[in-house]
Amino acid sequence: MPRRTLDFSDWLTDRVHHIESVLEQALPASTVVPGSLHDAMRYAVLGGGKRVRAALVYAAGEASLSAGTAASAQEIALDHAAAAVELIHAYSLVHDDLPCMDDDALRRGRPTVHVKYGEATAMLAGDALQPLAFELIGLMPIAPALVVQATQLLARSAGSLGMVGGQAIDCESVGKVLAAEQLQQMHSMKTGAMLEASVLLGGIVAGAGSSARQGLETYAAAIGLAFQVVDDILDVTADTATLGKTAGKDAAGNKPTYVSSMGLEGSRELLQSLHAQARNALLPLGPSAARLAEIADFIVGRDR
Amino acid sequence: MPRRTLDFSDWLTDRVHHIESVLEQALPASTVVPGSLHDAMRYAVLGGGKRVRAALVYAAGEASLSAGTAASAQEIALDHAAAAVELIHAYSLVHDDLPCMDDDALRRGRPTVHVKYGEATAMLAGDALQPLAFELIGLMPIAPALVVQATQLLARSAGSLGMVGGQAIDCESVGKVLAAEQLQQMHSMKTGAMLEASVLLGGIVAGAGSSARQGLETYAAAIGLAFQVVDDILDVTADTATLGKTAGKDAAGNKPTYVSSMGLEGSRELLQSLHAQARNALLPLGPSAARLAEIADFIVGRDR
Repeated sequence: MPRRTLDFSDWLTDRVHHIESVLEQALPASTVVPGSLHDAMRYAVLGGGKRVRAALVYAAGEASLSAGTAASAQEIALDHAAAAVELIHAYSLVHDDLPCMDDDALRRGRPTVHVKYGEATAMLAGDALQPLAFELIGLMPIAPALVVQATQLLARSAGSLGMVGGQAIDCESVGKVLAAEQLQQMHSMKTGAMLEASVLLGGIVAGAGSSARQGLETYAAAIGLAFQVVDDILDVTADTATLGKTAGKDAAGNKPTYVSSMGLEGSRELLQSLHAQARNALLPLGPSAARLAEIADFIVGRDR
Repeated sequence: MPRRTLDFSDWLTDRVHHIESVLEQALPASTVVPGSLHDAMRYAVLGGGKRVRAALVYAAGEASLSAGTAASAQEIALDHAAAAVELIHAYSLVHDDLPCMDDDALRRGRPTVHVKYGEATAMLAGDALQPLAFELIGLMPIAPALVVQATQLLARSAGSLGMVGGQAIDCESVGKVLAAEQLQQMHSMKTGAMLEASVLLGGIVAGAGSSARQGLETYAAAIGLAFQVVDDILDVTADTATLGKTAGKDAAGNKPTYVSSMGLEGSRELLQSLHAQARNALLPLGPSAARLAEIADFIVGRDR
């Protein structure tokens, strides 16, 4: 059955299985020297996860392609881009879980990488996942000028003005009360930057024009923030078993969150407003953006 | 005075000053949020160092350009490539010095990054230096197809089959005796991969043909190993003040080295043979490869 006609939940399941097999092939086998490093990299990446970033790459690719079906080179390029954002995400989780950062022993219901492989190997696994992401972008079989754009975008989004910068602000702000604006800046860097990159990478690969890219950017900024607002709400409303990670961790660590800044009700109102912004931004893209709209619904409605 | 006519020591001084100013401009200012992260990144990168990798990029660029002087776009691209390899090198040192790795408090005669900024910031600074390297490669103003080649090369050289992989083998082998072949594989990944990448990036930017690239590869592999042999010799023959880092550290940590594997005299003989290999590989490139030959002499003759 063509993917376009699947309902959302089946489409997402299909994409999750697909990216898992792409990642499985992109990662060096555990038999390749150094085996323990590759083993740790595979454990970090192939341990499940929601694969929201990969889904965004595919959905944005679908929304931007002019023809109904992606050409084979573009399909492969979307696989590379989707794998790249998942690798960056996975490395950031490995490093965040380390004792010198969040010191978390549980992730997706399993021991974290440093608990299983030791701190040195966990740090090196993260360090090696990052260039693998850039290698996959570099190997996308599309016009070199588009590959270069994708490289620049991924680099900027993953760096000190994007994801890692947001993480640093988060670390610095433990025990402080952040104003709503500062909180928003922190999250738009820490989580939003890579979600946005996922959407825009899909657009770049599919050759989206400048007006389509603008719609994608607005959509991406809104769902990037929405994602974090949901995370903060779940931290106080869900339990550890459902979440697959330690619930109440941010509240207990006195970390600033949307809930601590604007209360549970205020956070839920903000979430509804971001949801509407995201869906409205997609209107100019027409029916091909249906998956992106469904992902926005999914992010807002998720319970873990 | 044109750079071509400078003697080697003046040329190297000129290149060291130049790359320092390129890096200074490439790194976000300490006033940019998050300030402490950018401060730590600048401290890690701008703290001196031999800048051998940058020098290799420039020298290989000079050796491969057909005209006597680089065109301005190529000059800028060489700056980006040289900065990129220095950023990767700097990040690797920051992470290597962390308590979960080598736990070193002194680097280039100054406190290491985690001693000055804390472990979390040191780890994040390293994490952010890596994508900055790829961003600079992505911003090289040369043909996109060459930028893509450079991205692939840097990614592979910095990853689990290159630098980080070598580091992982090194960690695993503490307390073990490695056979000469295993030792060589470890070093050709840990140190050699990025030295080779430096040489080849210069060649890519300058548009080196396939026969020139082959000479550069042979040269790079030889000086990559020579560099490590010298490091191992200096670890047992130099003192901490001259070295700017803790001397005798590898021997004390029971780490396998060339000296522990083949003795001091055997290591010196190997060094002479690698030196000859490197110089011979440059012969087909003619007089424009003079700087590369001088760098080989410099690496073999250095005392810190």
